[in-house]
Amino acid sequence: MNEFELIDYLTNDFKIYQENVVAGIGDDCAVWREGDKYIVFTTDTMVEGDHFLKSWFTPEQIGQRLVETNVSDVASMGAIPTSMFVSLVIDDNTSPLWCRKMYDGIKRVADKYKISLLGGNITHGKTLSLTLGVHGETITNLVYRKGSTMGDLIVVTGTIGDACIARLMLGKGLTVPTALFNRLATPTARVDDAQIIKQYASAMIDISDGIASEARHIAKASQLGVLINATDIPYSSLAKKHEKDIDRSLLECALRGGEDYELMFSISEENFNKLQKHKDLISPLTVIGCITKEMTNVYIENDVVHDLPKGFDHFNENINL
Amino acid sequence: MNEFELIDYLTNDFKIYQENVVAGIGDDCAVWREGDKYIVFTTDTMVEGDHFLKSWFTPEQIGQRLVETNVSDVASMGAIPTSMFVSLVIDDNTSPLWCRKMYDGIKRVADKYKISLLGGNITHGKTLSLTLGVHGETITNLVYRKGSTMGDLIVVTGTIGDACIARLMLGKGLTVPTALFNRLATPTARVDDAQIIKQYASAMIDISDGIASEARHIAKASQLGVLINATDIPYSSLAKKHEKDIDRSLLECALRGGEDYELMFSISEENFNKLQKHKDLISPLTVIGCITKEMTNVYIENDVVHDLPKGFDHFNENINL
Repeated sequence: MNEFELIDYLTNDFKIYQENVVAGIGDDCAVWREGDKYIVFTTDTMVEGDHFLKSWFTPEQIGQRLVETNVSDVASMGAIPTSMFVSLVIDDNTSPLWCRKMYDGIKRVADKYKISLLGGNITHGKTLSLTLGVHGETITNLVYRKGSTMGDLIVVTGTIGDACIARLMLGKGLTVPTALFNRLATPTARVDDAQIIKQYASAMIDISDGIASEARHIAKASQLGVLINATDIPYSSLAKKHEKDIDRSLLECALRGGEDYELMFSISEENFNKLQKHKDLISPLTVIGCITKEMTNVYIENDVVHDLPKGFDHFNENINL
Repeated sequence: MNEFELIDYLTNDFKIYQENVVAGIGDDCAVWREGDKYIVFTTDTMVEGDHFLKSWFTPEQIGQRLVETNVSDVASMGAIPTSMFVSLVIDDNTSPLWCRKMYDGIKRVADKYKISLLGGNITHGKTLSLTLGVHGETITNLVYRKGSTMGDLIVVTGTIGDACIARLMLGKGLTVPTALFNRLATPTARVDDAQIIKQYASAMIDISDGIASEARHIAKASQLGVLINATDIPYSSLAKKHEKDIDRSLLECALRGGEDYELMFSISEENFNKLQKHKDLISPLTVIGCITKEMTNVYIENDVVHDLPKGFDHFNENINL
């Protein structure tokens, strides 16, 4: 049973009781209405040993990463983060000073986005883990995983696979160039770009589990298929340079490496032309595929059609791969 | 450093950016306004080995307990629970079937209070832990830890110390009578009674860490003191019967045992007389002390004045005490 099958097995018979709920389990955030606002909420957990090693990152970086990765989910719905809650389980090897430095990292990102820390809880356990819950809001439209139309382009922001390469290099004990390392250690949620893109996109998601997984989510939510052109996936020059240092291809990293926290969205060709003219957009945009009519999820490499893999499964795989 | 000192050390320089925030860190829930509503949110974590042993409870009981204890925080502010989010860290010894039974317990309480499960996350880790976040709301008044006036009575609902006695008996491998065991395994949040009490109380809190800790919180929040009459603390007949089986006095259990999830509130004598005439109140109410002028926190036993202890510290003590 993978993570998504388990979620369905555990939660499929729960009821939604409130009339103002717009979206529950199954998108990047839950969504409900309060007056003229959409409110969103997302939560995620990082466990030492499964999601990170203390030796890889400074406590400040771990704090920053915790907030940015959750804010990325808020951004990908088209909302602005507002408040957050930290649930911390501290083990015997974690000092108050380490925690304070980690909170310094949390605070840095909180101040950057003007997010209020409103609560949480701190307790003891055998394993260090950090859970963040973030609220966001918007009075304009949100974008969901569903909403794609046949023929829509599939577009990503930035470059893909950097975080995976950095992680694999760390796992091999190699020195990782700072710029590549920072893509893994301190990813940046695309909050501002998402506010622009949401005006044009038909569906959107953040890339936490790799292109393959996110493309499947978008296609499935609209009951359509997706085709990715492998040769169109944008890689950074550093990623290309260090492909030789790892035991996977760049394509594998991009398809199922995850943790880039870039945005993926579907968009009509007409809207994409309008979006590209937007002057305030910070990230480069790259068309990597399109929404197809059939319920197929494939990628094309060297004229050969392959099934899209399932993407990184945080539940069944761990960092020591 | 205890839990509260650590929270202050980690969070004292965070800013609140949103104007609609009414209360952040430091009460049972965070509070903010949305239109004519007060929205509250609380989150808490249970870690296997520190907060519970699987051998003590059925998975259904653990799920029920997770929701009731968080709902208790929502109730103690005077709000009605609305939506919730479960963050689950699963270890290798926890099967999908165990989780499903645990979610059956979560669902039972969700259906009882009409709470919508809107999201969460599931991941792998070396230690099983369950984090719940719950939203609540009300359009009428909330009650905070602060608000007490000199001379206010200190009142509790129900009986105190039952959960602690059950836990100590379990720790000694003794058979615990069902009614006593259920006070620990499946506590009941006092949601309905809190809706009545909040119309009269000056301050309110739920008893999760023992009378001593909660009384100190209420007194400190109003910059006053509190006096508890030890002989007035209400005990169940089962608790009295089994005091002989444990190595602590009933008084110790009540003062710093915690986990009863009854309500404690301060109230003027005049309002208490009105409250007692309320026909819909389910729980028995007992006056156990009063708010004093000085910044002293004491209890009286056999005409001797003692300092109130600090209460159970979930952060520095564990279940194997």
